[in-house]
Amino acid sequence: MSKIRFSTIEEENWVILSFELENAISPTDLQSIKPPKLPGTKGVIISGRGPIWLYCFLVHYYHPTRFMGTYDPREEGAVIVESHTSDYRVGDVLKVDL
Amino acid sequence: MSKIRFSTIEEENWVILSFELENAISPTDLQSIKPPKLPGTKGVIISGRGPIWLYCFLVHYYHPTRFMGTYDPREEGAVIVESHTSDYRVGDVLKVDL
Repeated sequence: MSKIRFSTIEEENWVILSFELENAISPTDLQSIKPPKLPGTKGVIISGRGPIWLYCFLVHYYHPTRFMGTYDPREEGAVIVESHTSDYRVGDVLKVDL
Repeated sequence: MSKIRFSTIEEENWVILSFELENAISPTDLQSIKPPKLPGTKGVIISGRGPIWLYCFLVHYYHPTRFMGTYDPREEGAVIVESHTSDYRVGDVLKVDL
């Protein structure tokens, strides 16, 4: 029944959180989504084909983490959108292997 | 020279923040973007055609505000992606006039 399936790849400094939508997702689904627990000491990079509001929801969900990025195929990497560490700067693009 | 132009419409309970990109925007532009100051006592709804990472950056930028939504033409409204008030629930769709 779950409309969204998450998978993770843990790297040294970040976790890549990929999602796949099995059916069309609707905004109210945000009320029942249970994203996986991730180590707060690493960055989180979100990847997947989905609506902007799903990305924004997930970015907020994980915002206490070290830094957050969203994977953009056009940039061939993950764009840092927030950071609590000087090691990763907003606007930087991380080369990540998906 | 500015690549992004913001405009706001203040409603009773939220502010609609629209952006327009005048040229292609690149991730490093996030380092110089100056989004407008908005009243923290209202919600903020983001609207515009732009990359996911720009939305995520803006959602994080305004996250201390009352609630945040992103306008989705497919939903004909703004999807609430985070909320600090019981009046607006994540996943709800607000009918907004752009």
